[in-house]
Amino acid sequence: MNRFKVILKFLLDQKSTIGYSLMALFTLGGERVFNRVSFQCPCNHQQNFAYGLTFLLGPAVVLLVLGLFLSTRFWKLFTGCCLNPKKLLPKKNNCDSLPELMSVFWGACVVPIMWLCIALMSGTFYECAASGLKKHLVVDHFCKNKTIKCLEELAQVPCERSKLPSEERAELRLMFKAQSQILGWSIIIIAVVAALLGICLRYSCSEVSYLQLTFWKHYMEKEKEHLNTFTVKYASKLAKRNIKSFFENKPPGLFPLQTHEAWKKIS
Amino acid sequence: MNRFKVILKFLLDQKSTIGYSLMALFTLGGERVFNRVSFQCPCNHQQNFAYGLTFLLGPAVVLLVLGLFLSTRFWKLFTGCCLNPKKLLPKKNNCDSLPELMSVFWGACVVPIMWLCIALMSGTFYECAASGLKKHLVVDHFCKNKTIKCLEELAQVPCERSKLPSEERAELRLMFKAQSQILGWSIIIIAVVAALLGICLRYSCSEVSYLQLTFWKHYMEKEKEHLNTFTVKYASKLAKRNIKSFFENKPPGLFPLQTHEAWKKIS
Amino acid sequence: MNRFKVILKFLLDQKSTIGYSLMALFTLGGERVFNRVSFQCPCNHQQNFAYGLTFLLGPAVVLLVLGLFLSTRFWKLFTGCCLNPKKLLPKKNNCDSLPELMSVFWGACVVPIMWLCIALMSGTFYECAASGLKKHLVVDHFCKNKTIKCLEELAQVPCERSKLPSEERAELRLMFKAQSQILGWSIIIIAVVAALLGICLRYSCSEVSYLQLTFWKHYMEKEKEHLNTFTVKYASKLAKRNIKSFFENKPPGLFPLQTHEAWKKIS
Repeated sequence: MNRFKVILKFLLDQKSTIGYSLMALFTLGGERVFNRVSFQCPCNHQQNFAYGLTFLLGPAVVLLVLGLFLSTRFWKLFTGCCLNPKKLLPKKNNCDSLPELMSVFWGACVVPIMWLCIALMSGTFYECAASGLKKHLVVDHFCKNKTIKCLEELAQVPCERSKLPSEERAELRLMFKAQSQILGWSIIIIAVVAALLGICLRYSCSEVSYLQLTFWKHYMEKEKEHLNTFTVKYASKLAKRNIKSFFENKPPGLFPLQTHEAWKKIS
Repeated sequence: MNRFKVILKFLLDQKSTIGYSLMALFTLGGERVFNRVSFQCPCNHQQNFAYGLTFLLGPAVVLLVLGLFLSTRFWKLFTGCCLNPKKLLPKKNNCDSLPELMSVFWGACVVPIMWLCIALMSGTFYECAASGLKKHLVVDHFCKNKTIKCLEELAQVPCERSKLPSEERAELRLMFKAQSQILGWSIIIIAVVAALLGICLRYSCSEVSYLQLTFWKHYMEKEKEHLNTFTVKYASKLAKRNIKSFFENKPPGLFPLQTHEAWKKIS
Repeated sequence: MNRFKVILKFLLDQKSTIGYSLMALFTLGGERVFNRVSFQCPCNHQQNFAYGLTFLLGPAVVLLVLGLFLSTRFWKLFTGCCLNPKKLLPKKNNCDSLPELMSVFWGACVVPIMWLCIALMSGTFYECAASGLKKHLVVDHFCKNKTIKCLEELAQVPCERSKLPSEERAELRLMFKAQSQILGWSIIIIAVVAALLGICLRYSCSEVSYLQLTFWKHYMEKEKEHLNTFTVKYASKLAKRNIKSFFENKPPGLFPLQTHEAWKKIS
């Protein structure tokens, strides 16, 4: 039993690492599934760009919204801000909410950026989008040193039925893939460096020391836990009392209830 | 049970050795995966260099940032340094922080250097990057004593569809691989010698003897351990008290809380 | 249980023998792995020598630095020697440290010499390095009594695609291997004889008898063991006391701490 407890404690300590790894795995799996089952480049000049971009950005937007949905802090910020607009406006004396909102937003951005990187690494979406670009500077760059047919047939490259010589087609596909992966790596590098700088900035402006911050983090976690159990317990007690008093036709006994003000204060 | 304890103690003593071995294994595995699944040299003059370099340096940058993220000492240094800029500036009377920052940085550099060495040892990334260099001194060196076609087809060497005679191509690939591995070994040797000299210098400037340093290392570890358990315990107690007092509409009882100054002092 | 104890005691008595055997096995395994997975002679005049030498000496340097890193005695010598330069300079009245430094260095040399011998015994690294030598005295010696083509194709000998007659190539390879193994044996013989003479010299200059030295060796070991357990125990106690006093807002109780001078004396 002791060994089992040790392992469980270790897993709970590494909670967020495991969570992010699982999310990365799910994102990777999702990309594979989309790629196999759903994605099929239309291979014509008008649609390629829009189609590829939709598959690149669509899931990213959905994941961003999902991330905001699942964020408790986001709902804490927004709840009641319509009746009490002071809460969101940053120009007032209490300007806590804008950095808070930014931090919630960046937290929700982690999974969409994962998706973008994984999708760009695999390269098929970008290939479809890039091959549908209009004949401009970019396309001339793709077809430099190649036959004139290249310009006409560029949109057909992602499909099997291109009329280009197979060698030239393979070259173009490799080029698209390389561009896509370079773009993916650039996004990863920019994201991690920006995250590091942002968190550095936030920590460096904090008034309290690192150890105290650790203490408050533990405190918040514990508070949330206890609040949950207490809420369930009290809600159950209150409901029982009210229903009992209804069935027995008696006025309900007294129950210590908190006012709205008290609830607002602890939020 | 006794044997299990002995083994566990041994493993805990060798914690950092095991940690580094695991990291090396993961890095090696990651390199294999990238090499198999993701990496495909585009084989044209414009992209080879950028593509190869991205795969060599991109993961190194990401690993460096991750290393800084996971370093407690890094956050201890940065927390509050904006409001209290004395903490980071080395010209003041208390010049502890610059060597500390350097040491944190070097600690985070271990894994990226591992990655670089493993990637250079396998040689495929370097091969792609080097074959995309512009026609200059370097390329003339590669193609010395070879046909004129070599200069034109150098970028195609990493791919199967090169038009060079297969013997010449094999020779070029071996040459690239050898350069890559010599570069990798040079980095390893420079890194370990620099690490040895740096730590020698730091230890040799220390005021206390080696045994006392060992004692302090043990003390720091134990302190961190105990601090963690105490923090969790106190945070849980405090949270429970506050929530209970909220639900029962009673003022919270007294609780011995530390001031900000006390927290700052022990950091 | 008794038998288990007997075996454990026997293993602990033979600790250093087992340690060296394990190191030799690991070195042998490492050589095999490098030889199979990573090493591939580039077979051209410019690189063969540098490449072969890198694989011969690179791991030796790394193992030497690692050996110094893991040596407690090395750090004991260096700690504080910058502020107290008397400790390392041998011209003073207390000239203990130069022989000590030498002995630490030779102790760290054991594994690198093992590597060199094992690598020379297998012969592939030497073969590659020797076949890349410039056309001088040495190469004329290799190609004595052979066709003129030998001089041109010498660098190709380690690879399969040499244009020499297969009989001549086999002869050259055997010659390289023989030279490599003779070199390896020479290093082994020189190393063991030098080690014997050095230890003889040190023991013969000692003032005390052999039995007393044995006693001191046992004493040192036991002292180290006990010091370790006591250090851990005291560190844990001190840490617990300090943290408890911090959380309970009480001044810490008295604790018997040693002064710097006491620590220096026992080092």
